[in-house]
Amino acid sequence: MAPVKLAEYLFARLRQLGIESVHGVPGDFNLTMLDHVEPAGLNWVGNANELNAAYAADGYARIKGLGAVVTTFGVGELSAINAIAGAYAEFAPVVHIVGIPARQLHETRTLMHHTLNDGEYKRFSQMAAQVTIAQTRLWDPFTSAQQVDDILAQCLLHCRPVYIELPVDLVDALVSRDRLQTPIQIPEPEETPPHLDDLVSKVIGKMEAARQPIIYVDGESRPLRILDALQQLVSATKWPTFTSPFGKGLVEETEQNYHGVYQGQWGDEKVHDFVNGADLVLCFGPHLSGTNTYMWNSIPQGGETISFTTTGVKMGAEHHRDIPVKLIMSRLVETLDVSKIKSYSPYPQIPKYELLDASSPPGEDMIKQDKVWRILGNLIRPGDIVMGETGTPGFGVREMPLQKHCRLFTHVTWLSIGYMLPAAQGAALAQRELIAASKWHGITKAKTILFIGDGSFQMTAQEMSTMVKHDLDVIIVLINNDGYSIERFIHGRKQGYNDVARWRYLEAPSFFGAPKDTFTASAKTWAELRTILENDRANNTRGLSMIEVVMEREDAPPGQLQKVLDMQIEREGKTA
Amino acid sequence: MAPVKLAEYLFARLRQLGIESVHGVPGDFNLTMLDHVEPAGLNWVGNANELNAAYAADGYARIKGLGAVVTTFGVGELSAINAIAGAYAEFAPVVHIVGIPARQLHETRTLMHHTLNDGEYKRFSQMAAQVTIAQTRLWDPFTSAQQVDDILAQCLLHCRPVYIELPVDLVDALVSRDRLQTPIQIPEPEETPPHLDDLVSKVIGKMEAARQPIIYVDGESRPLRILDALQQLVSATKWPTFTSPFGKGLVEETEQNYHGVYQGQWGDEKVHDFVNGADLVLCFGPHLSGTNTYMWNSIPQGGETISFTTTGVKMGAEHHRDIPVKLIMSRLVETLDVSKIKSYSPYPQIPKYELLDASSPPGEDMIKQDKVWRILGNLIRPGDIVMGETGTPGFGVREMPLQKHCRLFTHVTWLSIGYMLPAAQGAALAQRELIAASKWHGITKAKTILFIGDGSFQMTAQEMSTMVKHDLDVIIVLINNDGYSIERFIHGRKQGYNDVARWRYLEAPSFFGAPKDTFTASAKTWAELRTILENDRANNTRGLSMIEVVMEREDAPPGQLQKVLDMQIEREGKTA
Repeated sequence: MAPVKLAEYLFARLRQLGIESVHGVPGDFNLTMLDHVEPAGLNWVGNANELNAAYAADGYARIKGLGAVVTTFGVGELSAINAIAGAYAEFAPVVHIVGIPARQLHETRTLMHHTLNDGEYKRFSQMAAQVTIAQTRLWDPFTSAQQVDDILAQCLLHCRPVYIELPVDLVDALVSRDRLQTPIQIPEPEETPPHLDDLVSKVIGKMEAARQPIIYVDGESRPLRILDALQQLVSATKWPTFTSPFGKGLVEETEQNYHGVYQGQWGDEKVHDFVNGADLVLCFGPHLSGTNTYMWNSIPQGGETISFTTTGVKMGAEHHRDIPVKLIMSRLVETLDVSKIKSYSPYPQIPKYELLDASSPPGEDMIKQDKVWRILGNLIRPGDIVMGETGTPGFGVREMPLQKHCRLFTHVTWLSIGYMLPAAQGAALAQRELIAASKWHGITKAKTILFIGDGSFQMTAQEMSTMVKHDLDVIIVLINNDGYSIERFIHGRKQGYNDVARWRYLEAPSFFGAPKDTFTASAKTWAELRTILENDRANNTRGLSMIEVVMEREDAPPGQLQKVLDMQIEREGKTA
Repeated sequence: MAPVKLAEYLFARLRQLGIESVHGVPGDFNLTMLDHVEPAGLNWVGNANELNAAYAADGYARIKGLGAVVTTFGVGELSAINAIAGAYAEFAPVVHIVGIPARQLHETRTLMHHTLNDGEYKRFSQMAAQVTIAQTRLWDPFTSAQQVDDILAQCLLHCRPVYIELPVDLVDALVSRDRLQTPIQIPEPEETPPHLDDLVSKVIGKMEAARQPIIYVDGESRPLRILDALQQLVSATKWPTFTSPFGKGLVEETEQNYHGVYQGQWGDEKVHDFVNGADLVLCFGPHLSGTNTYMWNSIPQGGETISFTTTGVKMGAEHHRDIPVKLIMSRLVETLDVSKIKSYSPYPQIPKYELLDASSPPGEDMIKQDKVWRILGNLIRPGDIVMGETGTPGFGVREMPLQKHCRLFTHVTWLSIGYMLPAAQGAALAQRELIAASKWHGITKAKTILFIGDGSFQMTAQEMSTMVKHDLDVIIVLINNDGYSIERFIHGRKQGYNDVARWRYLEAPSFFGAPKDTFTASAKTWAELRTILENDRANNTRGLSMIEVVMEREDAPPGQLQKVLDMQIEREGKTA
């Protein structure tokens, strides 16, 4: 077979792994590499800047299972590095490919641009090593193809970002095409651990013994790739099921035994009592950051917990490492005899959030945080992706009941405001590709709905133009409350530093190049909001649309948020 | 005296050193710190995102001699880190202050948000160490004030960014107010080097012996803090003076013996011959990156070169390190007897760029790169700051003759597109403060003019809203040539990846909140451009205004740019 150029090889591998679009920004050390993107059958997204490109690749990766972003040496990669760190913290498998100067320039310490003018060419890769799971510098064509294969396998296995440096003078280096015949596999144990069957039996034994078992789904279930088995378990057991914020959207919420995001002592008291009364907690994919656990209050504290984690299975003091959790899950589902386990009958009364009709509050009243989320939830249709940016929307979307096959993004751990808008671009693109490939649960039409505050919107607003350029189906609901409200609740309620500049937000679609008849609307009162929600164009959206919801700057976010924040403040040692 | 809180102390120190405005973005680990900004007599800028904030602090620092940016742990600081690297590469003294979690959270490896959820709290400071000249983590109030003083001295001495971590629980720690009585000084040699007088004599000897001496001013003259003495030298010797791109704007261009940016073999042949015929080159602040030296072609190759550098004085093989260049310069100016040195009489014919009248090209013709810069130069008034973003504007502004007391920014080494717009916000703010303090050469009214391409504009456009919020006097001239033209010249002239999304650029001021009557105008032909340049509102600008200049996407940038780029391509080992 004819050999293949190294850049061609790299992009062919990405294409094999399901990537259809590559995010990024051109720069003079990656231009020749980019020549190989479209010939590999990939779509070039072309973002407005590198931070946004990497955020978008993260959103894409969380939906499609792998994403890629291409930047240039120094200036490009460092602009993206905050997003790469976020992908690490929250398990987005993003392949970060950096076009770097030709090798002899490194060796001669040439004072090229995009360096610190000191001849040092390894500073940026050292920085990348802090926030990626694996790094590789392609330097010798004899090993480069193998390095590509190895690092992509790492990316898939750990579901975390990896970093590849490709020198300009290696873009066209020839490698064997034969390798492409052997697909890259997600690494599995080389030998099945001998105690695997015992472990499955032990778990089943505990499940059969439990009198008040519950299921707790957290977000690392996604990198564990156990979502199908997990859904089967939830459906088969009919046990009361709760999620963390990170876990919301990973199991079907239309099931009777789904009860929403568990908020520990800050949520409904009946829910809290029920969870505390559990004698067995099956915990999937725990991710125990303070912000994902209501400051560690929503970690189920009932009886025994069996945790299926990214580092193995944990039962009490036992920690079974290096064990294939995915295999255990499928064994579990196969082996389980539901007639032998607890059947909740009659099913207990455990409250959950329900949608509210937009006509329920008095029409002339100002829109308030306490009800708006359950009303805005009426925008959601089966298969939609719902995104709540860090801030009040990130709390708000947790109250929204999701339709079948919806996915949800909320703030988890990294909490970098500005993330969610570019991530919506990436997620919407991934969603469209999956729909086109008939891989979106049979759904043929769905959209991405982004809920975002004004302060966050300002960070990365320009990525709306990428949504326009690629004609993505996105509704942006902008919460205009005149500043960083969530920060006001933490500290500085009246302080000027929590203000943001005042933009004319609804001019955004036009400014960013959308058709002049793009749907935009603004609401201050419940009646105005109802009119929007009843509008066909808000409901049946193709392309971009934008809705501004104006609320008071010190309107309290829903639920017991203030108490959570107070606790956070205390933990952080602030004098609030 | 009553003690002072640590954050108060830090901001008081910044204020003492001439900072009047602090850039940055609030975040929950810096909120209590920010309470101390305004009480310290400082203006809080409040940028749209952290990358922009740090770019703006860089622009501010290059004009005022010191800038500061405040971000929050992890998400904020990493978003800013590309700009900090640029400040390192190009000598902008930026103090990067990061609000970090309370100390006990580090010690207990608590899984806080804004971490990678792994208990590691030192990843980000290790990344910062790659791109800052000094780093300090305030951890113990017994030494914190001293640490602040030391690192600020480092920042001033090296004219490069430093990194300060301030834990939330130390914001209010008490330190002695007495310290503030002793100003921070830029470190000087503890003892005058014994050979200093000899060195000055030796330089003067060479100056007296020279028959065709020239002066070459490069950009590290600014961090050397020798600009006043350098100007005296240029004026007193009347020797032909050239600059690098980085050096342009650091000496007065209205002097007869100033001949613009030296472009080596790519510029005018007469200039090239004259420089090559020199028997002595006094070279100030050399910064020898490829992009600042026309791929090393514009480093004067005449006779002997005496270089005054940030690492000392170089003469042939001699490298005198650890020597106070500033002191040498003032000795030189004091000691020099101009009657003993070469006097050019008659003054030689050395061409230089002159302004062009807008009426010179045929009115109906499309605007072209070859003349547009010398025509746009008519916008410049004494004391203006002129900024040419990386790309065709960065080359274009090098042709513009500057009025008295102007400063210029062009691309130098870091070349991070997106830099120049936020930097214009910072520079314009610094300029306004200096005018208000009667420290802008007696000028009472001046503006900042930003020339920027469409691709670059899209990177960081939102910082226009910060210009609006602070009512800064800025003209934005947007070169709309439908994509990354400079990249097209390097590689991929027709490739889709060099396209950018099509925005309605002139809607920007309205979208970003400027008054509805903000001056905007667009020109495609020379006649349209002339009409704009004759408009009073374009000339006498207060506040923001915006001019779009539409040019063809493959219009060649001025001069011999393509040849320079070809050479760059060759050096980089690209298959163009």
